[in-house]
Amino acid sequence: MATTRPEVEITDVLLRDGLQMESVIVPTDVKVELAAGLLAAGVPALEVGSFVHPGKVPQMADTDEFLARLLPITDVGLPTLVFNRRGAERAVAAGARIVRLVVSASEGHSRSNAGVGVAEALDRLQDSGKVLDDHGIVYEACVATAFVCPFDGDTDPSAVADVVERLLQMGAIAINVADTIGGAHPSQVARLMHRLYADHPDANVAIHLHNTYGMAAANVMAALEAGVRRFDAALGGLGGCPFAPGAAGNIATDDLVHLLEREGIATGIDPDRLGAVRRPLERIVGHRLESAMSRVEAGAARSGAPQSTDSQETT
Amino acid sequence: MATTRPEVEITDVLLRDGLQMESVIVPTDVKVELAAGLLAAGVPALEVGSFVHPGKVPQMADTDEFLARLLPITDVGLPTLVFNRRGAERAVAAGARIVRLVVSASEGHSRSNAGVGVAEALDRLQDSGKVLDDHGIVYEACVATAFVCPFDGDTDPSAVADVVERLLQMGAIAINVADTIGGAHPSQVARLMHRLYADHPDANVAIHLHNTYGMAAANVMAALEAGVRRFDAALGGLGGCPFAPGAAGNIATDDLVHLLEREGIATGIDPDRLGAVRRPLERIVGHRLESAMSRVEAGAARSGAPQSTDSQETT
Repeated sequence: MATTRPEVEITDVLLRDGLQMESVIVPTDVKVELAAGLLAAGVPALEVGSFVHPGKVPQMADTDEFLARLLPITDVGLPTLVFNRRGAERAVAAGARIVRLVVSASEGHSRSNAGVGVAEALDRLQDSGKVLDDHGIVYEACVATAFVCPFDGDTDPSAVADVVERLLQMGAIAINVADTIGGAHPSQVARLMHRLYADHPDANVAIHLHNTYGMAAANVMAALEAGVRRFDAALGGLGGCPFAPGAAGNIATDDLVHLLEREGIATGIDPDRLGAVRRPLERIVGHRLESAMSRVEAGAARSGAPQSTDSQETT
Repeated sequence: MATTRPEVEITDVLLRDGLQMESVIVPTDVKVELAAGLLAAGVPALEVGSFVHPGKVPQMADTDEFLARLLPITDVGLPTLVFNRRGAERAVAAGARIVRLVVSASEGHSRSNAGVGVAEALDRLQDSGKVLDDHGIVYEACVATAFVCPFDGDTDPSAVADVVERLLQMGAIAINVADTIGGAHPSQVARLMHRLYADHPDANVAIHLHNTYGMAAANVMAALEAGVRRFDAALGGLGGCPFAPGAAGNIATDDLVHLLEREGIATGIDPDRLGAVRRPLERIVGHRLESAMSRVEAGAARSGAPQSTDSQETT
């Protein structure tokens, strides 16, 4: 696998989206070990933190230090999230090479999450973008609730297209559309992607999927068919969203690699090395992981597989 | 939903595939209640049992009685599994209107599950088919390990096509291809379906999917696009396979209905009434269900959803 040139690029978001919703606060040393394991498995980019108020999101309070420890050991992209000017300034101080500016496509989520409507949030991001531009830091833009909003329902693709237009004008080098609550369905993914590529044929578009309703793999296939080649995913399927409590997390990196490699699409990621990072992760977070691969592994360990039966009982 | 003419037909296999792998033996009275709930929700067909040795599969030992109790209360299809002449004779005695003859497409699974290779298993089925023909009982044919075999790996589509050819010649009114261990991936599903429709353009083809690796929804989409309109599914995602221990079960009926209705494809099934059957089911089997819908519901009950946060922390 690692010998074939990757045809897709997976950004593992375990260290940000995955750990942010955990009740345990993972020490920086442990995060560094997890990151090293993901890099050794061939993961080509890691979302490693978020420059938000440390009191509000204590799981991300060490983002500055964590990033500073990773930067010297790898050349891969290590994006961190930035929501406002203060976050941009922290990214500059931490030596970030790339960040992800975040804005919601829906009014309801924008007001709840950013405290302002979409238009004002975009103005704020422009201000943050200037800070980053001044320091030569490139930025992708993440569009939250690009498919479904927990307050407003399905998001109008035209609203997303307007936000994307503005973000590209600002200078974002890539657009990451997020199914924040995991409610998107395949034809909806296809529709938005076709719209974005129609507007911006050369745009660098990524997709961020959650598996809340079990549709993430189907949405990956729809995105692939529309031309998307960059995917977010979190090892073990960790992560979540405070707006969809109890829901499954991000699409699992281990499941995504399995799906893509089965489809004959090279990821550049070694599934065995990925598994070696997943096993300690369950102990670190203190609960069962959400990925199908972790369940399969646990089941095989309990029972030994494949097994033989002598009864005619299965289809 | 129930007012729109269904565009797909879902056979719920909870009462056979779902309960067969449970350690608890569900009393017939409880099965009848579950069946009544599924019928009230609009499920158009139920797989309700298996004429196998009651000592080997005690969960299915009441198939004769259960079927006899359901037949007078509904006109929907109530298929039961039949593997051999003895099973066919029991189906006749129980008054079955339709059965499912089962054969494996792969040698390894056939030898392990039926005790003989594919050719000999087909000869046996032909014998069973004659018994059914003599009594005017129609039969579908289920092709196990049509995509992946736990012993032989990926199944050659030509091997499946040969088995299907033989089954249609025998007189099977429909072909149900099963991803027995849940290892199929979307382009593999598309490939086999295109092959089967190329050989038999008018064949009535159904697909039976498991969600072991989280690919079931993606496989549904691939099957739909290839022209398949009939799907097996089990409420709550119960079920499994002794060859993939610990693996997730059948694609969940509740998740499948959610996916299809989101896609604008009418199922004729009422999701709320389906939910009303799912809730007692968790108590009946004594463990957490596997469906995404049950996890979403459990999470919402714990936390109240959607919630609002005042922190800028999600994408």
